[in-house]
Amino acid sequence: MAFLNDNYLKLRAGYLFPEIARRVNSFCEQNPEAAKRVIRCGIGDVTEPLPAAVISALHKAVDEMASRETFRGYGPEQGHEFLRHAIAQNDYRDKGLEVADDEIFVSDGSKCDCGNILDILGHHNTIAVMDPVYPVYVDTNVMAGHTGDADDSGAYGSLIYLPCTAENNFVADIPTVKADIVYLCFPNNPTGAVATRAQLEKWVAYALKHEAILLYDAAYEAYISDPAIPHSIYEIPGARECAIEFRSFSKNGGFTGVRCAFTVVPKTLLAKTAAGERKPLHPLWNRRMSTKFNGVSYIVQRAAEALYSTEGKAQVQALIEHYMGNAKILREAAQAAGLTVYGGINAPYIWMKTPEGTGSWTMFDKMLGEANIVITPGSGFGSAGEGYFRISAFNSRANAEEAARRIKAL
Amino acid sequence: MAFLNDNYLKLRAGYLFPEIARRVNSFCEQNPEAAKRVIRCGIGDVTEPLPAAVISALHKAVDEMASRETFRGYGPEQGHEFLRHAIAQNDYRDKGLEVADDEIFVSDGSKCDCGNILDILGHHNTIAVMDPVYPVYVDTNVMAGHTGDADDSGAYGSLIYLPCTAENNFVADIPTVKADIVYLCFPNNPTGAVATRAQLEKWVAYALKHEAILLYDAAYEAYISDPAIPHSIYEIPGARECAIEFRSFSKNGGFTGVRCAFTVVPKTLLAKTAAGERKPLHPLWNRRMSTKFNGVSYIVQRAAEALYSTEGKAQVQALIEHYMGNAKILREAAQAAGLTVYGGINAPYIWMKTPEGTGSWTMFDKMLGEANIVITPGSGFGSAGEGYFRISAFNSRANAEEAARRIKAL
Repeated sequence: MAFLNDNYLKLRAGYLFPEIARRVNSFCEQNPEAAKRVIRCGIGDVTEPLPAAVISALHKAVDEMASRETFRGYGPEQGHEFLRHAIAQNDYRDKGLEVADDEIFVSDGSKCDCGNILDILGHHNTIAVMDPVYPVYVDTNVMAGHTGDADDSGAYGSLIYLPCTAENNFVADIPTVKADIVYLCFPNNPTGAVATRAQLEKWVAYALKHEAILLYDAAYEAYISDPAIPHSIYEIPGARECAIEFRSFSKNGGFTGVRCAFTVVPKTLLAKTAAGERKPLHPLWNRRMSTKFNGVSYIVQRAAEALYSTEGKAQVQALIEHYMGNAKILREAAQAAGLTVYGGINAPYIWMKTPEGTGSWTMFDKMLGEANIVITPGSGFGSAGEGYFRISAFNSRANAEEAARRIKAL
Repeated sequence: MAFLNDNYLKLRAGYLFPEIARRVNSFCEQNPEAAKRVIRCGIGDVTEPLPAAVISALHKAVDEMASRETFRGYGPEQGHEFLRHAIAQNDYRDKGLEVADDEIFVSDGSKCDCGNILDILGHHNTIAVMDPVYPVYVDTNVMAGHTGDADDSGAYGSLIYLPCTAENNFVADIPTVKADIVYLCFPNNPTGAVATRAQLEKWVAYALKHEAILLYDAAYEAYISDPAIPHSIYEIPGARECAIEFRSFSKNGGFTGVRCAFTVVPKTLLAKTAAGERKPLHPLWNRRMSTKFNGVSYIVQRAAEALYSTEGKAQVQALIEHYMGNAKILREAAQAAGLTVYGGINAPYIWMKTPEGTGSWTMFDKMLGEANIVITPGSGFGSAGEGYFRISAFNSRANAEEAARRIKAL
């Protein structure tokens, strides 16, 4: 009989967002009147329509597909040249960062890339993640067989967890042990923390010293408001020798339902074979994408390109200001209610301490039951998240204002 | 230092389609006049515009994304309910086949799914492929570490190759040894062969006997013209206990540049853990898609749905007739030129024997140099493909007719 992948059986059943959905559905069924008042500040999904520049690029691309002269079939698996160029030029070279067009790999999502990157890495790497952590980093390592079983707190054996606490301002300290692969996410999901240039310099120095690889998730970089905070790991000298960067159009262009993202794999990034020979990872990722992927929809790539037009950039800026306006409203309401609040300044997530001694899931049930607000319990992101909860600023202004009123009234 | 995945280094450098592109580019640079006459019958990419029903569904979905009331963010990773239902109803239940909506997993491509399916299977399975074979089945197993090195013929150690020859009408004989996983592709890429109901019954009986899994690639099922030939493996009793089916909108709806496909994982399909316990694969694939994928673009899913409308079905039928008209023209020209010809009746690929003693790549160079036609050398699909070449019927009518004239004149 065929074997299945046993590692999947190590995954904990109660994945965070399905469990939230289950509790919300159950509450709504039992409380049909309150159900009408529920405001969802849980999942980090955008709510505002696509920018006008994107809408017209989409219509134009659809019309191209309607005529045999302009129809497009298979594109390059790595992305169309027009988009790889727009990304490398606007997001990197215009900012003085050296990234070549063919170091950009266009994909249908950062979540996919963060998982798929393990395909080209060996199975004997020591893996470090921050705690709390975006669950995909952990779960994809579990699925690939890089961990032991989960303990009672949900922590998997063999992974190095780097605690992010109020003491270190939710930026993990440099580990004293050696890791081969380190997942970093700034602005951070879930805590909304950002790393300073000095902190990122320490991470790059660590990686270069240990010849480790930093998997740098910058999906929320557009939300950085402080001009001193780096948007890209490549702003740090040496990062081209040790880092892969993941970016997404989900949260800047509102593409969560449109699906487009990209990954930067510098040609100067090396890893070693089992025999100890150093080789660049770029050809491996290129081969992975050619063999197991067939490129992003042409129509969608034209939509992403439109985000780099003059109008597109202004419209993205307006979207960011909208969501960050919500963040300010929610943040101030929580502070007024006496809560200890982090994040929400350079990120669309606000990370709050639960009142003394309240567990994350107890807080979830209380917020849902009393204020009819859906939050995300911090413990869902790892044991260091216990005693915290996340509120997302992705909402309409009216919902953010109403949620703020209810938080103050609690 | 971080380890890379050594298995990638086993992959042969000269992947088929890049090598074809290299030779075509080199020819065109050296022969700028002949370059203008080149007709591409190599890669299996569609050429005709999207059906009108798809174009209007795309415009409508784009407009929905322009307004906050109808905007769609993250969808279910497995696909929107409207599309899963349309697929299960139209492609299966309306034809008397039992497939539930939630056994359909919508993805961005069959190539991706054929590769990704290995994520949920163990590393100790014995794998069988047909020879010649679509290279993705083999290469993804190489990348996952399921094979040894390639020998001089390009065959990888540990894989079972099942020769498909003129003697068995290009449908592999049932192996005498036990395999755990068998890749089947009908209508076949590259040979254009189809399996009869009796042949598929033997494969299902084999799989049930050995508790093997059939990975059934039916990407070209829409091209079947013979009413006796099964379109789905689930037409064979017992297949729900042993088969996963891959289908695509690339070749029926012309979605090669739009990107949408689906995979059917019946809930009744089991595999075993290392400890020998039997478990269904459906929850594993569901978890894989939830964790490493974020769903197909909403706009694209509405486009795929439109293929199931009354107009959409008629427009798909017209596309199929167009390409199969090309196949007839090319097939008859090759026969008139004295070539031995297979396929091209229930598939858009025509598989031809090279004239006595001519190697596949020699034939490629000859067709390019003398007739300015790009073909695909059979040996690129495996050693049993040596002495054959593939011509694709995906072209405009004018190009197919001109290619036919040149083949006759050769």
